Amino acid sequence: MILLDGRKCSNEIKDEIKEQVDALKAKGQKVPHLAAVLVGNDGASLTYVGSKVRACERVGFESTLIRLDEETTEEVLLKTIENLNNDDEIDGFIVQLPLPKHIDEEKVLLAVDPDKDVDGFHPTNFGRMALDMESFIPATPFGIMELLRRNEVDTQGKHTVIIGRSHIVGRPMSILMSRKGNPGNSTVTLAHSRTQNIEEYIKSADIVISALGVPEFVKADMVKEGAVVIDVGITRVPDESHPKGYVIKGDVEFDGVSAKSSHITPVPGGVGPMTIAMLLQNTLLARARRA
Amino acid sequence: MILLDGRKCSNEIKDEIKEQVDALKAKGQKVPHLAAVLVGNDGASLTYVGSKVRACERVGFESTLIRLDEETTEEVLLKTIENLNNDDEIDGFIVQLPLPKHIDEEKVLLAVDPDKDVDGFHPTNFGRMALDMESFIPATPFGIMELLRRNEVDTQGKHTVIIGRSHIVGRPMSILMSRKGNPGNSTVTLAHSRTQNIEEYIKSADIVISALGVPEFVKADMVKEGAVVIDVGITRVPDESHPKGYVIKGDVEFDGVSAKSSHITPVPGGVGPMTIAMLLQNTLLARARRA
Repeated sequence: MILLDGRKCSNEIKDEIKEQVDALKAKGQKVPHLAAVLVGNDGASLTYVGSKVRACERVGFESTLIRLDEETTEEVLLKTIENLNNDDEIDGFIVQLPLPKHIDEEKVLLAVDPDKDVDGFHPTNFGRMALDMESFIPATPFGIMELLRRNEVDTQGKHTVIIGRSHIVGRPMSILMSRKGNPGNSTVTLAHSRTQNIEEYIKSADIVISALGVPEFVKADMVKEGAVVIDVGITRVPDESHPKGYVIKGDVEFDGVSAKSSHITPVPGGVGPMTIAMLLQNTLLARARRA
Repeated sequence: MILLDGRKCSNEIKDEIKEQVDALKAKGQKVPHLAAVLVGNDGASLTYVGSKVRACERVGFESTLIRLDEETTEEVLLKTIENLNNDDEIDGFIVQLPLPKHIDEEKVLLAVDPDKDVDGFHPTNFGRMALDMESFIPATPFGIMELLRRNEVDTQGKHTVIIGRSHIVGRPMSILMSRKGNPGNSTVTLAHSRTQNIEEYIKSADIVISALGVPEFVKADMVKEGAVVIDVGITRVPDESHPKGYVIKGDVEFDGVSAKSSHITPVPGGVGPMTIAMLLQNTLLARARRA
């Protein structure tokens, strides 16, 4: 069994990005500048945004964190986005999701300039990806593709079963894995909450990518011997015995499944760190395009 | 076996559209105006564009056909598109594909104003579709969805196998069938040229949608008893005995497969007529949005 070590892989990517940033600095050129907008005080969101800011520091990017009140109106948030769109200093920015319920998420995503949309959530970028054009690819799917690529996992003609059809993971993943390319060229089945006999699909898969958010849903008896298993689940499960009061659980029952799989991602330390590395990669790309 | 009669269904849709156009006229309002740009003299393209113009006449739309020389430069074509974007008379327009090889198709599709892109080929519309937002849906997949809906074919939780990953049929079809909705909510497998053991996938399908372009590829022994079979193939096969010198063949060996299937589309008279009806539907929508 080969562990797909996202921490190690993301560190390699960050080192590569840092080298490029150092080269920009050496030439006296502008370094990439990522901004993040966070509305409210959601604990997980604070953690994610904090990690993103630290990752920027690590590779030598400039970063700006804009924190807005939980009660911020949609109008004020849209105005903030407009300012970021027009700010020549900012190369790319993200609006941390989820947003408070009184704000229309669709309207917010549409307001982001596609050329600064380093999350790849704007329909123009999403459509470009689906139509095989160059685009910003959403960071989590992009990270999974990079993890497969750097570990030379063969996806050509394989049966990939993706569990979950979210806009940020399952849907883009289904597109990327079935596109021409390497990784890619998989025969992709997209399973979701309405799928009947989901276990049958998982059992038939050469590659399983689970983005369901149900802790330890995928068990050893559900996967084929030698399967590649990618666990995108990150669920906080209450645990009084832990100082934080919770533990992070993936979608995959790791001990059992890892004994059968050829490759597997751990949680934490698998897909999570890759996501942040690819956000940096997209920001570097945004800078290069604007230069 | 129930024949999914695209000719009949498309006539119903055209009658409904005509009623709406008559209502606009009665109120003295502008009727929808579709323009089509055709570069060169490809026989099949001439036929398609001709059908589209006649369909406009039938429902009371205005139509404009712009024919350009095979040798037209990309620059001239882009200028033509810009004029159509800016022409307030035109509600929607299409650029008939394929284009001559010296013209960059991607550049041309990107030049079309997404609000007039009634083919739904612009990445912004494609991305909106993939992200469950309102959009123009490409006419062929839209037509298949409408054919399933009006024939009350149950797609919820079923296994749909789509053969072919083209931008105009396979890819959008895989998105629409796996989206939430009715039809929709299918577990979708997207198969293509790189798929291994394609027959296994087809055999397991409750719904088969073939957009491969290989005449009579899908045979009776490849489909499950009671499957729903949608044939998107339209290939001209040379046939000296026929006055035109060719016959139109679908991807499905109709006689054998229809004996096993619960529902099946004929070729011709299945998906083809639906495509034109949905192009009109999109043009009606474009007019309504602009009104």
